[in-house]
Amino acid sequence: MNSPARMSGVLVPVVTPFGSELSPNAAQLIRQCRWLLSHNVGLAVFGTNSEANSLSVDEKILLLDELVAAGIDVSRLMPGTGCCALSDTIRLTAHAVKLGCAGTLMLPPFYYKDVSDEGLYRSYSEVIERVADERMQIYLYHIPPIAQVGISIELVDRLVKAYPQTIAGIKDSSGDWDNTSALLERQWDDFQVFAGSESFLLQNMQGGGAGCISATANINPAAIYRLYAGWQSAAAATMQQELDEIRELLQRYPMISALKAVIAFYSAEPGWDRLRPPLEELPEEQKLSLMKQLHIRGFTMPGLREATAA
Amino acid sequence: MNSPARMSGVLVPVVTPFGSELSPNAAQLIRQCRWLLSHNVGLAVFGTNSEANSLSVDEKILLLDELVAAGIDVSRLMPGTGCCALSDTIRLTAHAVKLGCAGTLMLPPFYYKDVSDEGLYRSYSEVIERVADERMQIYLYHIPPIAQVGISIELVDRLVKAYPQTIAGIKDSSGDWDNTSALLERQWDDFQVFAGSESFLLQNMQGGGAGCISATANINPAAIYRLYAGWQSAAAATMQQELDEIRELLQRYPMISALKAVIAFYSAEPGWDRLRPPLEELPEEQKLSLMKQLHIRGFTMPGLREATAA
Repeated sequence: MNSPARMSGVLVPVVTPFGSELSPNAAQLIRQCRWLLSHNVGLAVFGTNSEANSLSVDEKILLLDELVAAGIDVSRLMPGTGCCALSDTIRLTAHAVKLGCAGTLMLPPFYYKDVSDEGLYRSYSEVIERVADERMQIYLYHIPPIAQVGISIELVDRLVKAYPQTIAGIKDSSGDWDNTSALLERQWDDFQVFAGSESFLLQNMQGGGAGCISATANINPAAIYRLYAGWQSAAAATMQQELDEIRELLQRYPMISALKAVIAFYSAEPGWDRLRPPLEELPEEQKLSLMKQLHIRGFTMPGLREATAA
Repeated sequence: MNSPARMSGVLVPVVTPFGSELSPNAAQLIRQCRWLLSHNVGLAVFGTNSEANSLSVDEKILLLDELVAAGIDVSRLMPGTGCCALSDTIRLTAHAVKLGCAGTLMLPPFYYKDVSDEGLYRSYSEVIERVADERMQIYLYHIPPIAQVGISIELVDRLVKAYPQTIAGIKDSSGDWDNTSALLERQWDDFQVFAGSESFLLQNMQGGGAGCISATANINPAAIYRLYAGWQSAAAATMQQELDEIRELLQRYPMISALKAVIAFYSAEPGWDRLRPPLEELPEEQKLSLMKQLHIRGFTMPGLREATAA
C-alpha cells in the first residue's frame, strides 16, 4: 500500500463569524480563510475555538460547501467532525471526505463521562466502518480540559493498529507536555502529532512532531508559521519566546472572545466580535486593555484590513 | 393571565431501543412508552438515560413524530431538547412544542465549560424568544455530574422572573439534597421542582416538590408511583426504603446498561440490551448477578412481557 498523504505544519481552528441574527456568515468566513492561507496556515475549521459545538451539523455542512465552492484548497482543510451523537459524526465526516478535505479532526463523543476505552474504540470504529471511504484521514482530538472525555495513548495505539491508513494523527490539547512527549515516543508509522497550541511548537518539532493547531494562529499566523518553518534555526528559541508572550497575553481573557475582539479591531468588517451564547463578547474595557497591550508589543495583522474590505 | 398548566408526578427518561444496525427502533419505543404510561409514569423521552446525546436531532424529531402519531398522550410527554448548539435546541424545542408536548426538559449548552450565568441566561432566552410559542413549557435540567455545566439558583431566579409563564420547573440531578432544598425554599409561583431520582422523592414531596424524574422508573415505575401517590401515608418511609434498595442495586452497574439489561431480561423483545457507542452492554456475568439480586428481592416487571409481545 502507498504511504497515505498526511497533513503537517501550522493549522488554525478558524473562528466563526456570525451575523446580527447569530447565523454563521459564510462570505466573511471565506475571506478570513483566504487571509489565513496567505500566511501559510491550514484550516482546522470547526474546532473548539470555532464555536463548532454551538453550530448544528446542517450549519457546518453548509459552511463547508460554501468554502469549497469558493475555491478554498481542500488539501488545507481539516474540519472538526466529532459530535456527541454517532449519527452526526458519521454524517459530517462522510460529507467532509466526499468534498475531498485532506483530514478531519475528531473529538470523541463527549456528553457521557467515564466511558471506557473500549466504548471510545467502538465509536471511532463505527465511524470508520460506516463512512467506508479510503480517502478518510482522521486526526484524533484530545482535549480533556474541555471535552472531559480524553483519548488515552493505549486507545491511540489500538486505533492505529486497526486502521493504519485512516488514523492519521492527533491534536494534543491536554496542555500536558508529558502526554505529547509520550505520544511522540511511540513513533507510530505515518502518525502526525500536533501540539494543541504554539506553546509547545518548538518542543514538538524537536521531538519529531508535525506542527501545531493553535487558536492564536487566528491572529498571529505568520509568526507561528515562521517558527514552524525555522525551528532548526538559531533564532528558534527567541521566536518561541515571542510567540509565548502574545499567547500569554491572550490567555488573560476568555480565548474565543479575545480572538474575535482582536479580529474585529484589525479588520474592515463589523460584527466580528459577535459570539453565540453561551459565550460572550469581551466587555469594552477588556477589549481596550487587550488592544493596548498588543499595540505596546508592536502587534499587527498584516493585510487583514485589505483582505476583509474585498 | 391564566395559571399555566404544569406537569407533576413521576416521569421516566425512557431508554431508547436500537436495532441491530444501531438505529432507534420507534415501534419498540412506542410499546415501551405504553407500558410505562400504564404504570402512571410520564415520559421524559430523550433524557440522559435515553442516550439522547447519542442521537441526532433528526433522529429525535422522527421518534417524537412516531410517538405522537401512535397516539401517545402529549400531555404526558416531556422530551429532552437541550443540545450543545443553539440552532439544534431551537429546532428540536420548536418541534416538540408544535406537536403539543406538555413540557420540554432543557439541558444548558454543555460543551464549553466555565461559562457565565449571563451566557447561559442568553442561551435560554434566545431559545424562548425564537421558538416564540406561548404553549412552550421549559423544565430546566441541572445535572452537573454529567453535563459539567450547571444551572445556579440565581440563574433560575432570573429566568423565572423574565419568563414566568415559560419557565415551568427544574429537574435537579445534582445528587445534592441541599441544592434541591434551596430550590424548594424559593417557592417561585407555579414552579415545579423534580428530584432527579426517587432517592429524594419523599423528601421532595415533603418539601413541596412536584415529583421525580428517574432512570429507575424504566424498570420500577409502579412502586415509584405508589410512593408519589402515597407520600403522606404511614407506609411512605417504608416505601422509600424499598425503592432505595432497588436503586442501590442498580447503581452498582453503569446505569443505562443495567436498565437495558433488565428490560431485555423481562421483556419478550430481543435486542433491548443494545447501546450506542460510547456506551456498552453489560458483560454476561454482570447481567447474571444483577438478575439474581433482583430475583432475590422479588423484583418483577408486571405486564411487560405481554406488552412487548403485542
